[in-house]
Amino acid sequence: MKIGFIGLGIMGSRMAANLQKGGHSLVVYNRTREKAEPLLSRGAVWADSPAALAEEVEILFTMLAHPEAVAEAARGEDGFLSRFKPGRLWVDCSTVNPSFSREMAEEAHAHGLRFIGAPVTGSKGPAAQATLVFWVGGAAIDLEACRPLLESMGSRIVHCGGQGTGVSFKMVMNQLLGTVMAVFAEGMVLGEALGLSRQALFDALLGGPAAAPFLASKRERIEKGNEGPADFPLRWLQKDLHLASVSAYDTHVAMPLTNAAKEIYRLAIRDGHGDEDFSAIYGYLARNRDVPSMG
Amino acid sequence: MKIGFIGLGIMGSRMAANLQKGGHSLVVYNRTREKAEPLLSRGAVWADSPAALAEEVEILFTMLAHPEAVAEAARGEDGFLSRFKPGRLWVDCSTVNPSFSREMAEEAHAHGLRFIGAPVTGSKGPAAQATLVFWVGGAAIDLEACRPLLESMGSRIVHCGGQGTGVSFKMVMNQLLGTVMAVFAEGMVLGEALGLSRQALFDALLGGPAAAPFLASKRERIEKGNEGPADFPLRWLQKDLHLASVSAYDTHVAMPLTNAAKEIYRLAIRDGHGDEDFSAIYGYLARNRDVPSMG
Amino acid sequence: MKIGFIGLGIMGSRMAANLQKGGHSLVVYNRTREKAEPLLSRGAVWADSPAALAEEVEILFTMLAHPEAVAEAARGEDGFLSRFKPGRLWVDCSTVNPSFSREMAEEAHAHGLRFIGAPVTGSKGPAAQATLVFWVGGAAIDLEACRPLLESMGSRIVHCGGQGTGVSFKMVMNQLLGTVMAVFAEGMVLGEALGLSRQALFDALLGGPAAAPFLASKRERIEKGNEGPADFPLRWLQKDLHLASVSAYDTHVAMPLTNAAKEIYRLAIRDGHGDEDFSAIYGYLARNRDVPSMG
Amino acid sequence: MKIGFIGLGIMGSRMAANLQKGGHSLVVYNRTREKAEPLLSRGAVWADSPAALAEEVEILFTMLAHPEAVAEAARGEDGFLSRFKPGRLWVDCSTVNPSFSREMAEEAHAHGLRFIGAPVTGSKGPAAQATLVFWVGGAAIDLEACRPLLESMGSRIVHCGGQGTGVSFKMVMNQLLGTVMAVFAEGMVLGEALGLSRQALFDALLGGPAAAPFLASKRERIEKGNEGPADFPLRWLQKDLHLASVSAYDTHVAMPLTNAAKEIYRLAIRDGHGDEDFSAIYGYLARNRDVPSMG
Repeated sequence: MKIGFIGLGIMGSRMAANLQKGGHSLVVYNRTREKAEPLLSRGAVWADSPAALAEEVEILFTMLAHPEAVAEAARGEDGFLSRFKPGRLWVDCSTVNPSFSREMAEEAHAHGLRFIGAPVTGSKGPAAQATLVFWVGGAAIDLEACRPLLESMGSRIVHCGGQGTGVSFKMVMNQLLGTVMAVFAEGMVLGEALGLSRQALFDALLGGPAAAPFLASKRERIEKGNEGPADFPLRWLQKDLHLASVSAYDTHVAMPLTNAAKEIYRLAIRDGHGDEDFSAIYGYLARNRDVPSMG
Repeated sequence: MKIGFIGLGIMGSRMAANLQKGGHSLVVYNRTREKAEPLLSRGAVWADSPAALAEEVEILFTMLAHPEAVAEAARGEDGFLSRFKPGRLWVDCSTVNPSFSREMAEEAHAHGLRFIGAPVTGSKGPAAQATLVFWVGGAAIDLEACRPLLESMGSRIVHCGGQGTGVSFKMVMNQLLGTVMAVFAEGMVLGEALGLSRQALFDALLGGPAAAPFLASKRERIEKGNEGPADFPLRWLQKDLHLASVSAYDTHVAMPLTNAAKEIYRLAIRDGHGDEDFSAIYGYLARNRDVPSMG
Repeated sequence: MKIGFIGLGIMGSRMAANLQKGGHSLVVYNRTREKAEPLLSRGAVWADSPAALAEEVEILFTMLAHPEAVAEAARGEDGFLSRFKPGRLWVDCSTVNPSFSREMAEEAHAHGLRFIGAPVTGSKGPAAQATLVFWVGGAAIDLEACRPLLESMGSRIVHCGGQGTGVSFKMVMNQLLGTVMAVFAEGMVLGEALGLSRQALFDALLGGPAAAPFLASKRERIEKGNEGPADFPLRWLQKDLHLASVSAYDTHVAMPLTNAAKEIYRLAIRDGHGDEDFSAIYGYLARNRDVPSMG
Repeated sequence: MKIGFIGLGIMGSRMAANLQKGGHSLVVYNRTREKAEPLLSRGAVWADSPAALAEEVEILFTMLAHPEAVAEAARGEDGFLSRFKPGRLWVDCSTVNPSFSREMAEEAHAHGLRFIGAPVTGSKGPAAQATLVFWVGGAAIDLEACRPLLESMGSRIVHCGGQGTGVSFKMVMNQLLGTVMAVFAEGMVLGEALGLSRQALFDALLGGPAAAPFLASKRERIEKGNEGPADFPLRWLQKDLHLASVSAYDTHVAMPLTNAAKEIYRLAIRDGHGDEDFSAIYGYLARNRDVPSMG
């Protein structure tokens, strides 16, 4: 079976490589060809456009940065929608809004295509090691059709329900990551201000009932002053909080803490932490702690 | 060794019973004698006042509801401070402010006494099963002097540092519990508004990287509409957020999310949820979700 | 000069009537013809569509509820854009996003038309009494071309700058109205909880340095328990706070208080206050004040 | 009539000078004698302690920086409470908590003294020009006894009600000042980000319905980058928001926006704005606005 893959960034390139390792023939497209070279050198075929790619493949994956990029690849001038044979399957792994994902499903159906939204959790490492989690929204029969492929790239496949449900789950997950990171940072900074050591706080809290498991993976980074490339840039996390907040508005839900988190991350961005890992919110809150007393 | 125990509420009565099971002789005092009866029937001795109790014992535990109660027992008219023999050890297990705990330490020292602050985490169940965690602030030598006694009541003893550090840890822990519960509730309500089922959300989130372990223990309660007696009343949790917020003010720390959580719990209290378990914040945020559309 | 007017709701019908009183010939269109009857009975001419209207007039006003309605009237199937003679002037008085207003300006220019965005402040009363304030964004020469018409409907015309600036001003104004109303409500409720009477608080605060002038117009309404039809429904105000929050995200601005206000109005909506005047946020915050004490 | 005046800071020295101009004989006390010299050179008499002062006078004013200073002057070692003749009147003009003011009233009564709490609004200028506003809590008969004296120092005397009501009013006023300043700053920064000029925003908003009158007095300061000594230091304003938030907790009131404002001012303090005028919150929110785009 010939597989198409559009979007070869940090995540997509590693996911496609795992499909290749699984013995599948790939046809790939990316805005810049350069990122496709490692795949091409191992036998993948280059397509000059999404449209050209669609004519060659039976199943098509997209892994793009935002809804606008997905829309361009699907219905842009050289988009694949009008060139992909009816009855074939498009799997969108991009992180997009629930409403956008449903819109894509409808357009795909209008072209006689099948569609599932299957965003992932897990960053660079799990993408390389094929331990991503897929959150799938769409028909069970379509999921089954591509399950072995997803299993080449991930270690857990969760069928969440109908169209849009996969991206809805992912939205909730990222809302949790962002707010939990920020409330943990507040607690750490308070603890240190009360005279506890950072090390003792980490020792006591991590692994305990109130600390989400992912926080353990941030300890070393925080202790080293947030050096090195971000696992998940703070700027992206803030965007996800914004999207959750807009979805909350649309569905009449109150999210006072999530909105407060969105604003504190915004302040951290404007003070230069946007490209750091989102755990930099700790450093943002901890800085300048020794202000003059009120005397 | 004769042990004094003051404060026989839900927690204290169970903790004292475990000391008794450990073979220790108890002298007990409580505002109402009635609660002491089970202990007395198994050999404990009643004291008519904290002062009278202090004259009989070598080590003295307090487990009281708030700082005012501790202050009254220690330095009230019949307080124990002036009657407890110099060199002996007072272990305060009550949850109080860091600044108050340090004040008690100083008063104890001024009377020639030794002092450690040792608040616990874990509620009714762990108190009965002797699986509490003790968070100890004070000198290591004083902790060692009573370690076997703490081990009769708990399964983990953490020496946090000098005076006030144990209660500081506990303050951070409760700040985390309260804010994490609220941000999880916001995420659940958003997910349901986006069309996901409550069950699917629980299944996907609990046990995952973004969900603090204690949340699993709230699932059944939330699914049953928060019936039954509270494990930890929402009203108390809101008080702890308030105390954290005041400590943050005193130490010049910004806690925008913690303050936002404090206010949303306040709104839940004024709408009647104060005596429910603090996980009722989910029900508070979820209610009335189907408002008329803006059409 | 023949004037076109599209959108005859609460505001538009009164504005059009003032143009008519000023001696101008009107051609009108509204989704439901019924609302046009009073104007028709005084000589206005009915058009069957925006497109038909555009062919009859030299200047065209739109006063519609939201961007989608403006877009439909302008570029929908029977939209006026393609039928309005090049060189003529479209004045959009609707409250829309700055980015949408700029988009409309560009589309108008692409059709050879002139465009100004001129949203108003003032509600039903000022609309009837021709005392609205117009906040105009666009070229000065185009404003001058219609200034006498605006003066038939309002008492103050402010030229804010280029395209989009009028609606930007209005966005800031409504952000202020909403947040100021909410912080005033918080202060009132605190004052009453501290034992001050509502009347004494109003007497002391209104007219003083810290109270925005519009608050005086809410006193009677608040004292009477927010009876009667809303001057400005709380639901609309919350929408404006949402739009300001989205614009803030787009322009990288932090607005922690505005977001907090947005959420508290959301809670008030879900508890049934959406159709009341936005000053009902006072009643929302004041209710149930006598909760059981913490004992 | 001989008048005592304790506390000759920025405010107190100017208030006492106005009493002197009114022809009254003053006995004065201050922690440092130096600040009393101008008054002494015009005939005031120095007292070596609050206690010594109390023996000389018929009415006694205090104008001190915080509750602790008032408590020290009243009931410290050389405090005046035990030396002031029964039946005489103490007027406390200090800004203190409602609960503290009531406590002072009770102590005064216990010594047979009369007491009113009479904090002022207006800063250095109005203190010099005798245009302060007095917010009086206490018995009407006691207010009448000192009304002519208050009128020597202020232009408006408001009788708010019983003990504690004057300081309650002042608490609400400062809560309003602080939150209104912050929401106005948010609106200004959004407006500028949307392309409006600072000058145009000021012109349009000041004097309009949504802008509290005091904001006009901040315009020049904001336009000049918050140079010069503070009228009201941001740090003090944040303290007042904290006190309002604590009073709200005590009286079971929700103040989500006031708490959000408290936290944003805290962030401004830790970034170095604490000693600037509280209008510096604008500069804090406006800085670094041009962050890199999300690309």
